[in-house]
Amino acid sequence: MTRNTVQRATAPQAVGHEMCQLISELYPICRSITGDGVRQTLKILQQHIPLTVREVPSGAQVFDWTIPKEWNIKNAYVKNSQGDKIVDFRKCNLHVLNYSVPIHKKISLEELKAHAFTLPEQPDWIPYRTSYYKEDWGFCLSHKVLASLAEGEYEVCIDSTLRDGYLTYGEYFLEGQAQDEILISTHVCHPSLANDNLSGIAVAVFLAKHLSRRSSTYSYRFLFTPGTIGSITWLSLNEARADRIKHGLTLACVGDSGPINYKKSRRGDAEIDRAVLQVLKDSGEPFEVNDFSPYGYDERQFCSPGFNLPVGCFMRTPHGTFPEYHTSADNLDLIRPDCLNDSFSKCSSILQILENNRTYLNLNPKCEPQLGKRGLYGSVGGTTGGKARELAMLWVLNLSDGHYSLLDIAEKSAISFEIIKSAADALLQNQLLEALPRD
Amino acid sequence: MTRNTVQRATAPQAVGHEMCQLISELYPICRSITGDGVRQTLKILQQHIPLTVREVPSGAQVFDWTIPKEWNIKNAYVKNSQGDKIVDFRKCNLHVLNYSVPIHKKISLEELKAHAFTLPEQPDWIPYRTSYYKEDWGFCLSHKVLASLAEGEYEVCIDSTLRDGYLTYGEYFLEGQAQDEILISTHVCHPSLANDNLSGIAVAVFLAKHLSRRSSTYSYRFLFTPGTIGSITWLSLNEARADRIKHGLTLACVGDSGPINYKKSRRGDAEIDRAVLQVLKDSGEPFEVNDFSPYGYDERQFCSPGFNLPVGCFMRTPHGTFPEYHTSADNLDLIRPDCLNDSFSKCSSILQILENNRTYLNLNPKCEPQLGKRGLYGSVGGTTGGKARELAMLWVLNLSDGHYSLLDIAEKSAISFEIIKSAADALLQNQLLEALPRD
Amino acid sequence: MTRNTVQRATAPQAVGHEMCQLISELYPICRSITGDGVRQTLKILQQHIPLTVREVPSGAQVFDWTIPKEWNIKNAYVKNSQGDKIVDFRKCNLHVLNYSVPIHKKISLEELKAHAFTLPEQPDWIPYRTSYYKEDWGFCLSHKVLASLAEGEYEVCIDSTLRDGYLTYGEYFLEGQAQDEILISTHVCHPSLANDNLSGIAVAVFLAKHLSRRSSTYSYRFLFTPGTIGSITWLSLNEARADRIKHGLTLACVGDSGPINYKKSRRGDAEIDRAVLQVLKDSGEPFEVNDFSPYGYDERQFCSPGFNLPVGCFMRTPHGTFPEYHTSADNLDLIRPDCLNDSFSKCSSILQILENNRTYLNLNPKCEPQLGKRGLYGSVGGTTGGKARELAMLWVLNLSDGHYSLLDIAEKSAISFEIIKSAADALLQNQLLEALPRD
Repeated sequence: MTRNTVQRATAPQAVGHEMCQLISELYPICRSITGDGVRQTLKILQQHIPLTVREVPSGAQVFDWTIPKEWNIKNAYVKNSQGDKIVDFRKCNLHVLNYSVPIHKKISLEELKAHAFTLPEQPDWIPYRTSYYKEDWGFCLSHKVLASLAEGEYEVCIDSTLRDGYLTYGEYFLEGQAQDEILISTHVCHPSLANDNLSGIAVAVFLAKHLSRRSSTYSYRFLFTPGTIGSITWLSLNEARADRIKHGLTLACVGDSGPINYKKSRRGDAEIDRAVLQVLKDSGEPFEVNDFSPYGYDERQFCSPGFNLPVGCFMRTPHGTFPEYHTSADNLDLIRPDCLNDSFSKCSSILQILENNRTYLNLNPKCEPQLGKRGLYGSVGGTTGGKARELAMLWVLNLSDGHYSLLDIAEKSAISFEIIKSAADALLQNQLLEALPRD
Repeated sequence: MTRNTVQRATAPQAVGHEMCQLISELYPICRSITGDGVRQTLKILQQHIPLTVREVPSGAQVFDWTIPKEWNIKNAYVKNSQGDKIVDFRKCNLHVLNYSVPIHKKISLEELKAHAFTLPEQPDWIPYRTSYYKEDWGFCLSHKVLASLAEGEYEVCIDSTLRDGYLTYGEYFLEGQAQDEILISTHVCHPSLANDNLSGIAVAVFLAKHLSRRSSTYSYRFLFTPGTIGSITWLSLNEARADRIKHGLTLACVGDSGPINYKKSRRGDAEIDRAVLQVLKDSGEPFEVNDFSPYGYDERQFCSPGFNLPVGCFMRTPHGTFPEYHTSADNLDLIRPDCLNDSFSKCSSILQILENNRTYLNLNPKCEPQLGKRGLYGSVGGTTGGKARELAMLWVLNLSDGHYSLLDIAEKSAISFEIIKSAADALLQNQLLEALPRD
Repeated sequence: MTRNTVQRATAPQAVGHEMCQLISELYPICRSITGDGVRQTLKILQQHIPLTVREVPSGAQVFDWTIPKEWNIKNAYVKNSQGDKIVDFRKCNLHVLNYSVPIHKKISLEELKAHAFTLPEQPDWIPYRTSYYKEDWGFCLSHKVLASLAEGEYEVCIDSTLRDGYLTYGEYFLEGQAQDEILISTHVCHPSLANDNLSGIAVAVFLAKHLSRRSSTYSYRFLFTPGTIGSITWLSLNEARADRIKHGLTLACVGDSGPINYKKSRRGDAEIDRAVLQVLKDSGEPFEVNDFSPYGYDERQFCSPGFNLPVGCFMRTPHGTFPEYHTSADNLDLIRPDCLNDSFSKCSSILQILENNRTYLNLNPKCEPQLGKRGLYGSVGGTTGGKARELAMLWVLNLSDGHYSLLDIAEKSAISFEIIKSAADALLQNQLLEALPRD
C-alpha cells in the first residue's frame, strides 16, 4: 500500500483549496463550445499540467456533425430609453444567449421580451441558455428586472462574431507501463458556472497532476472538451484507437455538498462501475448509483452503441436536480473545498483499485496453508472471531483460483479493497500467491 | 401510431356496453363441455364473427383423453310431497349437477341430501358443480332451501340425455401477413356464470371483430372451446402446427371490477409475458403478475411440457379468489361495462406491442446523430431535463445495436411503449434507423 | 415415503435424551488435537457405531502442515504461598492453555498474570484457549479469581507431555448402492465444551446409527476429526478419492436453543445448499442461511479452492455469536434434548431429500393426462382450488421435462418436498413418469 501512503501524504484540505483557487481564476471567463474563452481556459490549465491544445477548423465533418463557426464576444448590453444599461454582459456573461449572432438596434419591449429568457420561479437569478446550432440572439436576465421594464424603446447590442475558425480542446496523455488507457473527460464549454463545470475541470486537473508524480500501470488520457461536439470530435479523430480506453469517467458537478452520484456505463457491470461502487461502499458515506441512461454529459458519446466504451459519469448532485443548475446561482458559493477534495480523493481511490485490481493464483490451493508458521496468524486459538486482516487473507486464499480478482474478493467478502489488497500483498510476500498476467 | 388512432376512435364505453349485451344474450343458455348449449352459444357468436364450428365425435381419442358422450338436458326439478317444485332447472340451470345422467324417481330426504350440493357459508347462493367423467346425478341448491326441507318423499327428475354425439368448439382464424400466429383462447363450457366465463368470450369476440377491421403482421387464431377437453382436442388435432403460435393468451374472469391479474406463461420471460407487463406498467393502475402455475384454465394444456407454448392467462379477479366464483352470484351484476372495456383495451394494447415490437439498427451508431438539424431536438440548450420524446429518441438510438427490441428499450428506459414506438417512427422517417427482419 | 414413516417411528424425545447421555459421558474428557482424550472419545463412540480409529504419526507432512507432537496431560494447578490450589485442572480441564508444555516452578504474581487468560466481561467464566503450534504454557481462569490474587509467590505446575506420537481420528463408512458419498464431518478436539462441539459429535453419531439401519442410495462417510489439522490430514490421505463426495455437511453447535443457521458451501448453489434451504423452509420455523465465508469449521478445508467440495456448515447459534462460546459456560446446561433432536431430525430430512431427489420424465407430455380415470383426481368439478396433492401432481407433470428434479419442483411450486415426492410416487405407480438415470 505504498501508493495509499503517498496519497494520504497530500494534505487534503490543501488540494481542496488549490482547486477552489483554480476555479476562481477560471470563473469570470466567457466560455462557449468554440472561441477564445476555451483557449484562455486551457492556457490557465497549462500552468498546472502540460496539456496539448488542439484546434479543428469550422466546417470539418465529425461523424454526423459539422464543426460550427467560431463564436467570440466582446460586449453586450440592453439600454433603456434613458440610456441606462439594464443588462450588462460585462457584469455577468450569462446575460447573453450563448452563441448569439451580433445585433445592434432599437426594439420595443415586446420584441425584447420575445428574445428574453428568465426564471419566473427564481426571480433573482439569471438563467444560462445557448443556441449553438440555430442562429439566434437573446438575453438572459432575472425575472425581476424583466418584470420591472416599462414600455418604450430599448437599445440591444451584442458585439459578437460568428466566423469560420476553430473548435479548441485540450488533451493530456500520461504514459503508463501499458498501452491500455483510463480516460478522464470533462466539459469546458460552460461560462460563469462553478459547479457545472469548473468543479469537474479542477478535479480532472488535480488528478492529472497527482498521477503525473507517480508511476502507473495504465496510461491516462485527460480530455478537456466542449460538451457533445468536443467529445464527438475527439472520437471522430481517434476512432481507431478508442478501444484502448479500458475504463473511463466523465466528471461534472463535483464541487457541491451533495453525496456522490454515479451513473454507470452503458455496459452496467464494467470494472469501472464496480470500482466506483466499491469506493463508495468502503467510504461508509451515503451515495447514489444509477443505471446508464443516454441523457447527461459526454458519456453519451463514449457510450454510443458504435463505441460502447466503459465510461461512467461521476457527479455529486446531478445536472437538473439542484435549483441553481444552469443559473447565475451556480456560483463560487455553491462549491466547497472539502467537497472538491472528497471528489478528488474518491476518484483517486477508484483509480487505485483499477491499478491494483489483479487476479492471483493460490499456490497452495488444497486446504489452507499454515499461516501461523509464517507469522501471518495469531498463535493463541480459541478467541472469538478472526481479525480483519487474517479474515481477508482467508478470503484471498479461498477465492484466488484464477476466477476472482481482488475487486471480486472485496465485493464477495464485504471487506474494503484496501484491506484485501494489503492481505494479498502479505500472501504474495510469503510466496503463497502468484499474480496472473493482466488480460 | 396510425393503429393507435384507429383504436382510440372506437368509443370505449360503446364496446363495453356491446359486450354486456352479448353476455346478457348468452347468460341463460345451459352450456356444458358438449351439447346444444355450446352450439347455441357459437351460433350467437357467429352473428359477430365468422367463426367455424367444429364437431369431434364421442369416443375419439385426443391424447390421453376420450371425447365423452354428448350431454343434453331439457328439464329438471325436485318436487316435495305436496307437488311443489322446490328446485327448478328452468329457473336456474346451475341447479343440476352438470352432466347428470337422467333420473326420475321418488326418494327420501336423506337420499336427496346425498345428491345435493350447497354452500353453507353462503346460504342463499347455488353452487356450480360438474361430474363430466364419472356418471352421477345431483342437484345444486341454496343451503337455505336444503335446510328448510322436511322429512318425506321427494320426486327428483332430470330429463337429460347422455349419448354418443359430438364435442363442439368454435375457431376463427384471421390471416395476417405472416404465418406466425397469436392465439386467443377462452372456455365456453360454463352455464349461467357471467364473469367465468361469458366475460372472456365477449372480450375475445370483440378483439376478433376489432382485429378483423385492420391489417396485421401476425395471423390470429381465436378458440372458443370447452375447458380442458376442448383445448386438448384442438391441440391433438393441430399438433403439427401448434408451434406456429408465437404468443398467446387465455382469457377468463375479465368483467369484474378487480385489477388485472396476469399469470405468466410457463416460459416466464416470453415476449407475451413482457408485453403484458409493459401494458400494465404503462397504465399506471394497480395490477398483479404471478409466475406460471399448472392450475387454472386452458393455459395448462398449451403450457404442458410437450408443447410449452408461450401462452399466459389474462384475468381480473382470478378463479377461486372471489366469493361469487362458481356460484349463482357470478351473475350479470358482477360484471361491468367499463371493466370489460378496460380488459378489451389492455388486450388490444398488448397485441399492439406484439405487432410493433421490432428491433432496429441505429444507422449512425458512432456518437449521437445531430437530431437538431433534423428538427427532432429543441434548438435552445441549457434547460433542465430533456423532453420525454427527445429522451425516448436518445434511448432508441443508444440501444438499437441489434440486441434490443422496442420492448426491451421500453423496459430499460421506463418510458411507455407508445412513446418509444413513436420515437422510433420519427427516427425511421429520418433514415436514422433500419428495421431488422423479424426472426 | 416408506423412509419417512420409519423415521417418524423413532420417538424424537428418546433420541434427544440419548444424545444428551452421550454428551454427558464425553463432557469430562480433556480432548485436544492429539492425545488420549481423542482416543478415549472415539472409544466411547465405538459403543454406538463401528468406526475405524486411524493414527497418523507426528512429523507426517499433510499438505502445507506437519502433524504436531502428541500432547497429553495428567494434572495441572496453581498454588498460592499458603499451598491452596487456586486453579485446579482436575476441577475443569479448560484451566490449562490447551497444548501447554510441562512446567513446574515458583513464580511471581506478575509472571503468572503474563501467562493467565481471563474474560473481564464475564468475570465468573473460564475461557478456552489453545496454543497448538507455538510452544507455550498458560492458565485460563475466571477474572474474579485472578483479580483476587495477592502479591506473592505462586507454584505453577503443568504435568503434560509433548512427544512424538500420533494424531488420532475416527472414520465410519457406510456403503450405499452407489459409490457417490455424502460426508458428515465434525470436530472432536474441544475439551469440556458442550455445544461446541459435543453436540455435533452426538448428532453425527446418531445420524450414522439411524442410517446404518436402512438401505440407501448414497454411501455415507462420517469423520470425527480434530479441527483443521484433522480434516487437512484426511484430505491429504484421501486426495484422490475426495471427489466422490457429492454432498456434505460439517456439524457444530447443534444443541443450543437458537434457530438453525446454515452456511452455504463455497459453490453457493450446490444441491446440499438447496436441500438444506428446502428443509428449513418446509419446517415453517425461523432460520438463517448465509453465504459461504472462509472462517468457521472444517468446511474451510473441504471448500478450499483445490477441492471446492459441496460441503456446507449446519449449526444452530454459530461460533462466536453466543456469549458462552469457548468458555466454561458452554456446559451441559446450554444444550437441550429437544434442540439436539431437532438438529438430528432436520439433518435426517436433508439426507432424505438428497436420497430422493430424482429427475423424472413425464411420459404423457402433451397436455395433461386424465388423472381422474386413474383415481388420482376428484370426480366432482367446480370446487374452489385444487387439493394440495392434486396440485403437486400437476406441478410434477408440468415440470418433468427432464430439466427439473423434484427439488427444483418443490422450489418452484413452494410445496413441501415431502408432498412433491409423494405426488411423484403416485404418478410413477400409474406409469405416468419414468425416472431418469442419476447423473
